[in-house]
Parts: sequence; C-alpha cells; structure tokens
Amino acid sequence: MTDCVLITGFEPFGGDDINPSWQVARALDGRRIAGRRLVARQLPCTFAAALSALDQALHGLPSPPQLVLALGLAGSRSAVSIERIAINVIDARIPDNAGAQPIDEPVVPGGPAAYFSRLPIKAISAGLLQAGLPAEVSQTAGTFVCNQVFYGLMHRLQAMPAIRGGFIHLPPLPEQAARHPGSRTLALDEQVRAIQLALTIALRREADLRQGAGAID
Amino acid sequence: MTDCVLITGFEPFGGDDINPSWQVARALDGRRIAGRRLVARQLPCTFAAALSALDQALHGLPSPPQLVLALGLAGSRSAVSIERIAINVIDARIPDNAGAQPIDEPVVPGGPAAYFSRLPIKAISAGLLQAGLPAEVSQTAGTFVCNQVFYGLMHRLQAMPAIRGGFIHLPPLPEQAARHPGSRTLALDEQVRAIQLALTIALRREADLRQGAGAID
Amino acid sequence: MTDCVLITGFEPFGGDDINPSWQVARALDGRRIAGRRLVARQLPCTFAAALSALDQALHGLPSPPQLVLALGLAGSRSAVSIERIAINVIDARIPDNAGAQPIDEPVVPGGPAAYFSRLPIKAISAGLLQAGLPAEVSQTAGTFVCNQVFYGLMHRLQAMPAIRGGFIHLPPLPEQAARHPGSRTLALDEQVRAIQLALTIALRREADLRQGAGAID
Amino acid sequence: MTDCVLITGFEPFGGDDINPSWQVARALDGRRIAGRRLVARQLPCTFAAALSALDQALHGLPSPPQLVLALGLAGSRSAVSIERIAINVIDARIPDNAGAQPIDEPVVPGGPAAYFSRLPIKAISAGLLQAGLPAEVSQTAGTFVCNQVFYGLMHRLQAMPAIRGGFIHLPPLPEQAARHPGSRTLALDEQVRAIQLALTIALRREADLRQGAGAID
Repeated sequence: MTDCVLITGFEPFGGDDINPSWQVARALDGRRIAGRRLVARQLPCTFAAALSALDQALHGLPSPPQLVLALGLAGSRSAVSIERIAINVIDARIPDNAGAQPIDEPVVPGGPAAYFSRLPIKAISAGLLQAGLPAEVSQTAGTFVCNQVFYGLMHRLQAMPAIRGGFIHLPPLPEQAARHPGSRTLALDEQVRAIQLALTIALRREADLRQGAGAID
Repeated sequence: MTDCVLITGFEPFGGDDINPSWQVARALDGRRIAGRRLVARQLPCTFAAALSALDQALHGLPSPPQLVLALGLAGSRSAVSIERIAINVIDARIPDNAGAQPIDEPVVPGGPAAYFSRLPIKAISAGLLQAGLPAEVSQTAGTFVCNQVFYGLMHRLQAMPAIRGGFIHLPPLPEQAARHPGSRTLALDEQVRAIQLALTIALRREADLRQGAGAID
Repeated sequence: MTDCVLITGFEPFGGDDINPSWQVARALDGRRIAGRRLVARQLPCTFAAALSALDQALHGLPSPPQLVLALGLAGSRSAVSIERIAINVIDARIPDNAGAQPIDEPVVPGGPAAYFSRLPIKAISAGLLQAGLPAEVSQTAGTFVCNQVFYGLMHRLQAMPAIRGGFIHLPPLPEQAARHPGSRTLALDEQVRAIQLALTIALRREADLRQGAGAID
Repeated sequence: MTDCVLITGFEPFGGDDINPSWQVARALDGRRIAGRRLVARQLPCTFAAALSALDQALHGLPSPPQLVLALGLAGSRSAVSIERIAINVIDARIPDNAGAQPIDEPVVPGGPAAYFSRLPIKAISAGLLQAGLPAEVSQTAGTFVCNQVFYGLMHRLQAMPAIRGGFIHLPPLPEQAARHPGSRTLALDEQVRAIQLALTIALRREADLRQGAGAID
C-alpha cells in the first residue's frame, strides 16, 4: 500500500518573506512517517486561488492521501495550535496577497455553519506537551484564508470519509519575531518536530482504528 | 593578556527543573569569544546567598574578568531582554528557593536608587534583531533575585571601573512553555546564539574603545 | 402587540461573588427599548441545569419573546464581545458550580457542528464603537457553560424562526479586576450602556426588516 | 494653614483628542481633600516644554504645595499604576507632540540614575484594591515624557524635602479603547475615584507623620 500524507503550507503573507507553515511543510517533504510518504504543497495566500490550489494538490497525487494536514501562521500564538473547528465565514480584516478583502461571505454558499477537525486533536496536544513542545487546542482558526482552506478541506472530505484532515496554526519564526517587537515565536526546529510528532500520533491512531476494525471484520 | 568573561546563570526556580539562564551559561562555558575565555558560574535563587555566590565567582577567577554578564529567566518575556537599569529594591511577590519573601527592602542599604548597565544595550539589541533574534531593551529587571544580582553586581563594579557588566533576561524554554499554557518561549539554540552575539558585540565595542583610547594616548 | 425581550445572565462563578452578566441583566430588567419590555432571568452556572433554566425562562414569559440575548462573563476580554458562532462542544477546563467537568461532549448529541448568531453582530459592534464603547466581534464563545447556553439557545430557536437570538460576552467588573492582578475590566455603567445600545440596534434592525417585509407584502 | 495639592495632567497626545490624565486632573480641580485644595495644571506633551511648564505650575501657586501628583496615560495598562521610580533617561520610540524624538539622553545631565517616588505607593495600591479599583505598583514609568516629568519633579523636590511627590499612570478611557481594538480601559468615574482615594491616603499618611513628629517634638 502506498498511501501518502499531504501537507500544505502557505506562501509568505503581506510584508514577510517567509511563512513558517511552508518552511515546516517543505522540511518534511519526502520524509516517511509510519510508512507513509509526506508530500508538501504550497498554497497561495489569496481567497480567490487557495481552494483551487488545494484541489490541484489533492487530485494531483498518485493515489488519494490517507491524511491531509493544512498548516498556517498565527501571528499572535505562542503555542502550536491544533484547530478544533472550521467555520463557514470569510471576514478579512486586512487584504489578502491579491488585495481582496471580502467581508462576511460564506466559504461555501449553502454549506453548514462549521465542520469539526478529523484529527485526534486532544491526543496530538497531549503528545506535544509531553514531548516538551508548547501546544494547545484552539477553538477558532479565524476568518481569513487559513479558515477558508480548513473549511474548504473539510467540505471536500465529506465525500471522502476514509481520509483524515485538519488544520494546525504555527507561531511566528524567531526572525519574524525580531521584526515585530513583542511578537511570540517558536524556532523552526521545534515547529518541524511538533508537526512530525502530530502526524505520527494521527497516523498511529488511524492504524489502531483500522486494525481494530479489521479485527472485528 | 588572559582576561576572561564571567557569565552567571541561576539554578532552577520554584517548581521548574531547568532554568534557561543556567542552560545558556553552561553551554557557553569554556568557549572563547574575541580571544576571551568564557567562564560560567551558577548562582542560587535565594536573596540570602545570591550575592555571596556572586562574590565567590568574581574573586575565584585566576584574573579579574573583563566583562560580567548575569543572566536570568523572565517568565513573561518573548524576547531576549537587555536590561537598562538595576534598582535598589527587593520586593518579592513569591518566596525565593529558601522560602524568604522580603518586601520593600534595599539591596544595599544606603546605596543609590539605581545603577545603569555598563553594556552597549542598544548595540546589542540592534545586533540581535539584525541576526533574526527577538530582542529588546527592557526598562525594568523586576524586584526579585534577578534585580538583586544585577544591582549587587553594578554596586561591586563601582570600585572596578575597567570592568563592563550588565544583565540580560531570557524567555522560557519550549519545555517550560509546554507546562504553562499561553507561555512565551525561545528555543535554547536561539538563546545561546543570542548571548554569544551579545558578548561579541560588547567585547568588540570594548576593544574599539581601548584601541581608540590608545590612539589618543 | 406586547412582545418582550429576554435577557439572561449567569449567577456568580467560582470564587467570585458577582457576575457582570447578571448585574447588567438585572439593571435592565423592566426597562423598555423600542417599545419592548426587557425581562431578565438568571441562569445557574452548571452544565446540568443551565439549559433547563433557559427553557423555563423561555416558556415562562406571558408571550414569546421577540429577541433573546444571553450574556456571560469572559475573564480575559477587554471589550464587549459580540459572539458570532456557537459550537456543539462542551469541554470544561475547570469544574462548573456543581463540580462537573465534562470533556469533549456535545451540547446536543447529533446536533449540527455550529449555529450562527441571529443578531446583527457587525451593526452592534460598529454602533458600540461609534458610541465610544470598546466592542468587537468574537469568533469563539469558548467551550464552557456560556457556549453551551448559546448553542442550546440557537438550537431551540431553530423551531422559532421569528425570534432573534445571540450571545454577548462581557469583561470583568473593576472590583473583579481588583482581585486579579493584570485583569482587564469595564465599568458596570459602560456595560449597561453597551447592552442597552446593542438591543436598540438589534430591535431597530428587526423593525426595519418587518417594515420592509410588510411593504413588499 | 492653606497648603494645596498640585495635580498635573498631559494634553492629548498623538492622534487622540483626549487624555485621561488631564480629564482626571480637571475633574478634581478645586475640590478639597483632607482640608487641602486641589489645583490642576495641564502640561504639554513635548520634551522641550514639559518641565518648564511644571516649573511654572510649581512656582505659580499662592503657597508651596504639600504634595505634587503627576498623572499620565499608559496605553497598555489595565490598572491604575502607581510608579515606584523615575530614571534619568529620555528614549523616545515615537515623536512627541512637537515632533522631537530624543534617543538615550539624560533628563538632567549629571543627575543621579534614578529617584524613588515619595508617595506611600504600597498603601495607595492596597487602598485602591480594597475599594474595588484595579491598581498595581509599577517598576517602570517608561522613557517618554511621563518619565521625564516624574524624574524632573523628583529632582526639583530634592531641594524641598517637605513636599511629597510622585507619578501615577492611568489606563485609556473607554472611548480611546473603542478606537484601538484589544485596548485595555478604565472608565473616567473609576479613574477619578482612584486618584481621589490615592490623594486621601497620601495626605492622611502625611498628617500621621507630621502628628507623630509633633508628638516627639
């Protein structure tokens, strides 16, 4: 079996020239975790193009992924934030990379108000904390492109019940914090370790579930 | 000439089993910067013993240090905080490691209200930011053992005008942040790089000053 | 027609002996806004009893309310927070007033992931800011009893499409902030003014909509 | 005896059209506390003119004041902040109202590094908290015009040992917080009550001390 894991990260946003979500995804590209190959894809930070880029990433893989983890930057977080829920709202306080700033629009017109993550968010949070990495479950992924991608992903996965999916927000990198007085930060090494561990926990949980299901069969 | 640099860090405080100030000092122990050998010494986190331990460290060196840098942990800081001023106050909101909690006492009875750092605090802050490390000049080192050591150090250095001295506060390590939800953090590697760079900047400045002085002579 | 407006507030929680949500509701009890009489009811701060108390409040009125506004305390907010969305999760980090601490349970088993507020949240936020009152739209009402009541309210209102409903979180009162160093706060007078204005905006909007609908008819 | 109390507040700063320090001072102007008449004077928010305006205020009174309380705005504070110490540094991160932005200059060339407040800062803080008002002792008054006035005041009072003096920072008013998302705030009524109580405590302490001294004489 050759299932893979899709990890998405965003291009740099606004004035910044790096984005930890892509730095982390790129660092993990090609590695294997629990026998699964990790494939990283970059998404544009624009409302107009992010979801079609996600579709291309999802359908451009040799086989359907077993798990999709979307990553994003949360400028005011000091901990790796495992998101619990995506909401059907786009409400941009600042323009995206294309200058668009939609206010109070749905991600998917007529879609449900929200989708829960399909990741074991509490197990991931506990595992990271036990490994000495700052982590927390977050109740809001905001209303910008990150939440749009998270909601769009979970909406697409409604038709693919076997695929796990979710979203994790990452703190700024030290070099970003150096440009924003008072900014919180987490070093790239810790971020990569955190996401690697999050994937290990999610895939192990998945294997346990499948094995359990198999035993019943 | 065999001048050295004395770096002090604190033992772990309260419930924690590590203290970044000592982790960083220990990591630098024995290294050389600008031809100077770094010597690390640990200080107890008690009002009663910290300054006598500082005295032992100062006088136990083979030769007088050219520079003394005291390090401490600031639980709520996200940036390396180069302290500007030490004040003649001890005012403990929580007990020290010996259970003592003095309120509104002077560090040195009859001493001046405050001493300024003798480090090039703006040059250090700018240098760290330029290197992509979060840093800031801080206007208060608090009123706990950190400020006591800082004030006590600068008071002792009044009699040793050739010796530079100052204090830098460090953010919690990731494993500490993992135990305190919402805590800010900076990884050990970044902290060590930051202090190494701070010392390089301070010693280079010092060399420039001496050379300048020599040229005038 | 004698429609009324139901405002709920919570009993004091934990160690505190007051709760701004009830102070504000009580202060508005019996007043009239846009011809509607305000009726305040207190809810217990327990997962087991809050929603049955809400039911009693809803069904104990002489006539169905035109609008239901539930209020709660948000200890870390400095602004009046108009909540956008209620989620189908109870996840208590601390015990409620009855000592219960449910983890990752649904508010309504089998219910949708979330419900949006039926209040004009952006108009309320803008109106408060224009009146010089700190306000913001919030994307999460948390996962404690506040969110449970908000979700439970919106779930009940599914069967009552003519009734507006929503939730607003209030900052701590100054006397609460005085007991919690660093706490944010807003004075009771400002809180009462803010909720009075929020109701005025919501009822005016409602009247406009009804009038508009009538004109079309 | 007709001793008075001088209270200074600042003109609005930067984009704002109000400053709580002046609103509070003005509200107290002409009132009597413990038999002393309160006199309010406004100071310009410029490094060049603030201290000469303070001199005019000090020397323009019919008789020397018994106590001088300077007030200022601290944009990021949520509590009334009773300042402990003024430092001999001007270091402006932003320009003052005249466009000047001095960096690392002394308030008084050749002056001591710092002066302590002559107010009973702990008694004031405790009294405010007991009255249900958020308050704290602060270890830094910053390095802007507020600290300049505080240091300049304490420097002048060196020659007037009978006059008490100090500085208190106030949080933003609600209408200011409404213009700055996430800003902390305290209502004007609470601010006025807080400063009135602070003065009462300071004057009562002063009277006790004088009475005590008299008894010894």
